[in-house]
Amino acid sequence: MQRYFIEERFHEGTVTLTGDDARHITKVMRMREGEEIIVVECEETAHICAITAFNEHDVLVQQTGRTIPSPELPIDVTIACGLPKGDKLDLIVQKGTELGMYGILPFEAARSIVKWDAKKSAKKIERLQKIAKEAAEQSHRTHIPVVEQPVSFAQLVKKCAKYDVVFVADEEDAKVKERTRLVDKLKKIYDCKSILVIFGPEGGIARDEAEKLRAAGVITTSLGPRILRAETAPLYMLSAISYEFE
Amino acid sequence: MQRYFIEERFHEGTVTLTGDDARHITKVMRMREGEEIIVVECEETAHICAITAFNEHDVLVQQTGRTIPSPELPIDVTIACGLPKGDKLDLIVQKGTELGMYGILPFEAARSIVKWDAKKSAKKIERLQKIAKEAAEQSHRTHIPVVEQPVSFAQLVKKCAKYDVVFVADEEDAKVKERTRLVDKLKKIYDCKSILVIFGPEGGIARDEAEKLRAAGVITTSLGPRILRAETAPLYMLSAISYEFE
Repeated sequence: MQRYFIEERFHEGTVTLTGDDARHITKVMRMREGEEIIVVECEETAHICAITAFNEHDVLVQQTGRTIPSPELPIDVTIACGLPKGDKLDLIVQKGTELGMYGILPFEAARSIVKWDAKKSAKKIERLQKIAKEAAEQSHRTHIPVVEQPVSFAQLVKKCAKYDVVFVADEEDAKVKERTRLVDKLKKIYDCKSILVIFGPEGGIARDEAEKLRAAGVITTSLGPRILRAETAPLYMLSAISYEFE
Repeated sequence: MQRYFIEERFHEGTVTLTGDDARHITKVMRMREGEEIIVVECEETAHICAITAFNEHDVLVQQTGRTIPSPELPIDVTIACGLPKGDKLDLIVQKGTELGMYGILPFEAARSIVKWDAKKSAKKIERLQKIAKEAAEQSHRTHIPVVEQPVSFAQLVKKCAKYDVVFVADEEDAKVKERTRLVDKLKKIYDCKSILVIFGPEGGIARDEAEKLRAAGVITTSLGPRILRAETAPLYMLSAISYEFE
């Protein structure tokens, strides 16, 4: 069943779909009165609705009373990733959205090779936000992950205080024999509401960044004995969180 | 430290590297006598070795006695995936290798849109095998996943008997409210040595395929409440297995 996101509330069980959504229903899907769609209200509840009328450019729908159980992770997981090269951020946003990511916060890491200027940045964020929206629809989510503007490393450290727990995935930690197991760490945070997980760019987190994060109370964690690429590590973490908490 | 895979055994702690590996050491890395590299012997043990001599096109190395702990999953996990569209198999092979996959077996699923003819197939497998080798080196593995020739669905069903456990990821299962939890299934297979996990192409496993697999003793499993794309589902499964068993 096709799904549409609305930012307003239903009134007495009905709502009017406009713009792109209405066009999609009439021109692309060629739907008729009585057919059913899913309407996600304010990123909260997915209602199964029936089409009741077509106005000039709008489509009127009515709740059937049936809803779909939430597909969201029980903990909000935000991914902070050091700006990677090429189109790796596209992959992280798309796959991260499928895997339940709550939001993504790119940052300028010491080992980031690319720099985003303010002009480029706005365009890129818009593009990534579109990827997130499409992936959220495709994977049947009710929340569209927010793609934030890139921040400096210093700003990232400040933002850590906003979250219940902050982890940093540190490759150096994956190389040592006495590994700290991720499972032991996740088992301890069942009462948390929000997590931030920090990942380095290619080459990982720099040593002085790791030091500063540890000083700020961030917990270092390993993602197993294999070295994961910058774009694979967040997907591993989200899968592990889903596996543990869902 | 650079890593090289050899298919022969060390003799009295020494071995001669030839061909591409020798060329890489001398021309690309420009290494000298006494410098250290990692040599993986017969996909088993990663030995730290010192370069002892350069012959015309060959490089002689000697074990230092130090080895690197195995980065392999404790269970061999083979991924069977319905032939997907475009270059999605590239992504599955690359990321699957990073995440510890043991081998990959593509199959012609009812919903596979692409068909591989015999001529194309050999070339594609060669290319995928190269991706697996590079990803294995990059993620510090000792085993290079084997990319098998695509098989028919009937052949896939026959092959199931070779494995201790076989799972099929079934999207239909992800939609029901009473979900069967993957975690409950993985907890039961701690004594297994080999698993095959079957994934459909875009659109998932067809209903009659699911029936035939169930009849063959294959266990249906869900990968959480979100609908994952064909190329994302295997990565979720490998991450979950790593998280559970490592």
